[in-house]
Amino acid sequence: MNVLGIDPGLTRLGYGCVQQDGRKQIARSAGVIRTSAALSVPERLGEIQAEVRSLIGELQPDVVAIERVLFQVNVRTAMSVGQSSGVVMAEAVSAGCSVVEYSPNEIKLAVAGWGGADKTQMEQMVRTLLRINVPLKPVDAADALAVAICHLAQAPTAAALQRVAEKGGKITS
Amino acid sequence: MNVLGIDPGLTRLGYGCVQQDGRKQIARSAGVIRTSAALSVPERLGEIQAEVRSLIGELQPDVVAIERVLFQVNVRTAMSVGQSSGVVMAEAVSAGCSVVEYSPNEIKLAVAGWGGADKTQMEQMVRTLLRINVPLKPVDAADALAVAICHLAQAPTAAALQRVAEKGGKITS
Repeated sequence: MNVLGIDPGLTRLGYGCVQQDGRKQIARSAGVIRTSAALSVPERLGEIQAEVRSLIGELQPDVVAIERVLFQVNVRTAMSVGQSSGVVMAEAVSAGCSVVEYSPNEIKLAVAGWGGADKTQMEQMVRTLLRINVPLKPVDAADALAVAICHLAQAPTAAALQRVAEKGGKITS
Repeated sequence: MNVLGIDPGLTRLGYGCVQQDGRKQIARSAGVIRTSAALSVPERLGEIQAEVRSLIGELQPDVVAIERVLFQVNVRTAMSVGQSSGVVMAEAVSAGCSVVEYSPNEIKLAVAGWGGADKTQMEQMVRTLLRINVPLKPVDAADALAVAICHLAQAPTAAALQRVAEKGGKITS
């Protein structure tokens, strides 16, 4: 399975693509899409749309996993993060990908084992899990790889629950 | 000038296209894009993207005017309205349109003459200004036409201010 993780944002949007081959996870690509504050919000969203379209075309992910926007930060930030996540979702669906959202807490739990992990711990865990020897900069790229790892960790459980549901809720071996 | 007004939303997105020929404003099209609550948010945004793309292709607006999302309602609604407005903005910019946002207050002022106008008054003013004899239902279509009318009312002032700014701030005849 090939997963494109996205840490949405208007100024910096992190992306990280992780491929699972058997038990092995390989980082295929990671980076940041930046847009200039000198442009209008619609122009910046247009750039994000074009860049995400070309990323999806190049990496051909099966799933696009996006960090869910929470409203604990300030309202203006939440709004622009919401707009950029909306653009990514629409592009991913149009390209035929499945789209899944994970909360920051779910991502930390899946990658570092606890919800209180800080940025540095998360970056180190991402590098360890993906056997990356160089620091991941900017941190948005590491965050996006973490979203992809989170999906790969959750996907087997989600698939098993789906099978149980299809069998009428009975767990069979 | 040909303006496509948008009242953004995830469940119902209103659109209304108004053409200005000389002093005359003509409603060219108005309606609502609906998405089913049975679909996931990304799927709904994908549908909105496809529908808005086809609307812009058909109506060829110069400007897409969007009602600005405010955070006075509940957070969940604001989030989904933000995501849908983000998708519309990116599509409009990609299609080469200018994109402008107006607050609900600016729209009411421009169409009804005061910021406290209610839904019924706004619908009646839109019908009067555009010489429409039938009730505009659902109300989202009237709201979207109001956004387009607001832009046509503001555009001459905005253009004049732009000319003044280009002349170094001096108002000349």
